[in-house]
Amino acid sequence: MADPATISPATLLKDELDIVIPTIRNLDFLEMWRPFFQPYHLIIVQDGDPSKAIKVPEGFDYELYNRNDINRILGPKASCISFKDSACRCFGYMISKKKYIYTIDDDCFVSSIFISHVAKDPSGKDINALEQHIKNLLSPSTPFFFNTLYDPYRAGADFVRGYPFSLREGVPTAVSHGLWLNIPDYDAPTQLVKPLERNTRYVDAVMTIPKGTLFPMCGMNLAFDRELIGPAMYFGLMGDGQPIGRYDDMWAGWCTKVICDHLGWGVKTGLPYIWHSKASNPFVNLRKEYKGIYWQEELIPFFQSVTLPKDCTSVQKCYTEIAKQVKAKLGKVDDYFNKLADAMVTWIEAWDELNPSGASKSSDLPNGASK
Amino acid sequence: MADPATISPATLLKDELDIVIPTIRNLDFLEMWRPFFQPYHLIIVQDGDPSKAIKVPEGFDYELYNRNDINRILGPKASCISFKDSACRCFGYMISKKKYIYTIDDDCFVSSIFISHVAKDPSGKDINALEQHIKNLLSPSTPFFFNTLYDPYRAGADFVRGYPFSLREGVPTAVSHGLWLNIPDYDAPTQLVKPLERNTRYVDAVMTIPKGTLFPMCGMNLAFDRELIGPAMYFGLMGDGQPIGRYDDMWAGWCTKVICDHLGWGVKTGLPYIWHSKASNPFVNLRKEYKGIYWQEELIPFFQSVTLPKDCTSVQKCYTEIAKQVKAKLGKVDDYFNKLADAMVTWIEAWDELNPSGASKSSDLPNGASK
Repeated sequence: MADPATISPATLLKDELDIVIPTIRNLDFLEMWRPFFQPYHLIIVQDGDPSKAIKVPEGFDYELYNRNDINRILGPKASCISFKDSACRCFGYMISKKKYIYTIDDDCFVSSIFISHVAKDPSGKDINALEQHIKNLLSPSTPFFFNTLYDPYRAGADFVRGYPFSLREGVPTAVSHGLWLNIPDYDAPTQLVKPLERNTRYVDAVMTIPKGTLFPMCGMNLAFDRELIGPAMYFGLMGDGQPIGRYDDMWAGWCTKVICDHLGWGVKTGLPYIWHSKASNPFVNLRKEYKGIYWQEELIPFFQSVTLPKDCTSVQKCYTEIAKQVKAKLGKVDDYFNKLADAMVTWIEAWDELNPSGASKSSDLPNGASK
Repeated sequence: MADPATISPATLLKDELDIVIPTIRNLDFLEMWRPFFQPYHLIIVQDGDPSKAIKVPEGFDYELYNRNDINRILGPKASCISFKDSACRCFGYMISKKKYIYTIDDDCFVSSIFISHVAKDPSGKDINALEQHIKNLLSPSTPFFFNTLYDPYRAGADFVRGYPFSLREGVPTAVSHGLWLNIPDYDAPTQLVKPLERNTRYVDAVMTIPKGTLFPMCGMNLAFDRELIGPAMYFGLMGDGQPIGRYDDMWAGWCTKVICDHLGWGVKTGLPYIWHSKASNPFVNLRKEYKGIYWQEELIPFFQSVTLPKDCTSVQKCYTEIAKQVKAKLGKVDDYFNKLADAMVTWIEAWDELNPSGASKSSDLPNGASK
């Protein structure tokens, strides 16, 4: 394996990564990202009214899909893609032909930070979020044992005393979950209670989320290995005609984590930070969220207790099995989960239709990987 | 519960915390800690030759125990306390009458760091390690679900969107594991391979190690709630007459974590940093460690699969049960583990003898806490 410290990722993965952006507006925010994003291909998923023109700054290489395109490409299976919700972004994951995906919200800007370490002068510098994500994805994860000095593969770090040597090779990293300075990703009740809270703490760490531990995955600043885990990155049924919103990325995160745990892959969180510019309206958010806040209390125990049988050796098989269990166990919480379970199956069918060759990427189920 | 952001811990816990220091030399290192440690009571455990006088700088309030004292106080049970190894420090945990313990090695100094956050000027400042440990111990832990913005109880942070509300009260924190700048806590092979590596990365985070995840606990810079978890903080049989060294804190950490997971308590790691001044000799370390490095490959799966029955409602009961399982399952790895299992039982007997009233601190086994 290449030494992650010497990887020059931005140039390496130019032809292997798509940037997926869901939007309802002009993409002026791309100006700020130009030095970092311009070498890459963008997949823009237009939400809402397809007759509205989305303006993309000059010089970017992109393809754009609106609702009409999605309906045309997927036919009846388009029902699994949310409308009037940024959950529609997962169509971009499906239509991509690349190995890696980076997805970012259009109200996220480049973080410029002043950070200094021991005995070094501080210097302001723009964070190349994409480069850090790529570094995260190209270096292994360590889900089976906690390393107290964080990511052992970073330059200047290693495994500490007491870390079993048999686990030091790590496992492939499937997901890199980045964070946000300025506006933190709070739910509506927390937004309402702390309207002025801003995240100013730059934590200079990347870490693997341990096996068996669930986390709240935010879709604002997220990268993943599409060939490994893509089919699990379904953002569910949200927005128009649905009783719930703002749980799209959470749903994807819970399914993804359970599948990564089963197949022996890693999920990293921490760096990079983006600058989240604008808090969304907490009153609108509360309306979208309130059922999720309630249902979540049943969803977490459900995902904590999901077990996948040994013969679930591909993401598709795992995901279909989870859909079955969702119907069996969550259908009684609300009929919404029956619809969602059906949509999960449709999503996998659509994925395999658009990705015939890479449809059955499977894991070797390494020692200690399966539950 | 008091808002951790407003706690002034140093003054609050002056009479409730002992600082335990194992040593074989004069304690000149205390000079640097004077502004922080002087209000507290020290328990010094002298390792090695009891006829040697240990010099403690003036003005500190301390009691000192050498091997003769330990033998006199514990009688035949003194066999459970290691000799010629810093594992002897656990005698200090046992003899203390305070609620909290902070333990530190005598080659650890105050870290002075230059750290700046977004849009703030950097400023050099001495880290009050003890104050940060107390903050960690006085605020709850969150072992059941991962919070991506780290400790949600720190000022400026909170639970992120998607974090179940039923889990936001947290659970009592039993352990605060601090880290080290300069010389990292590496094993002998890593020391040999990377003789010049220094830890210069200041990670401004505290986090809960999730339930079900083991970690390598280092005794260099460690605080814990003695009333909660004290009887599990046994540092084993190391040093003189034993086939192994440098696994004292690891052993305590694995036992402690399994018991905290069972009883529903939290273990935090991260801040504070101390400045670890001197790398120990890697060749000597290799001699002490090599059996541990080998055995560890069996110990980790053992601790990962330990389950404690429901009727283990106190730390003592849990610990005695683990001793039983050590004998049953690890005795065949090496006869050393039979001796260790016996010593674990002796340790608990000695603990209860010295701590008759607090002998059966038990947990309420909150929902979701037991395995």
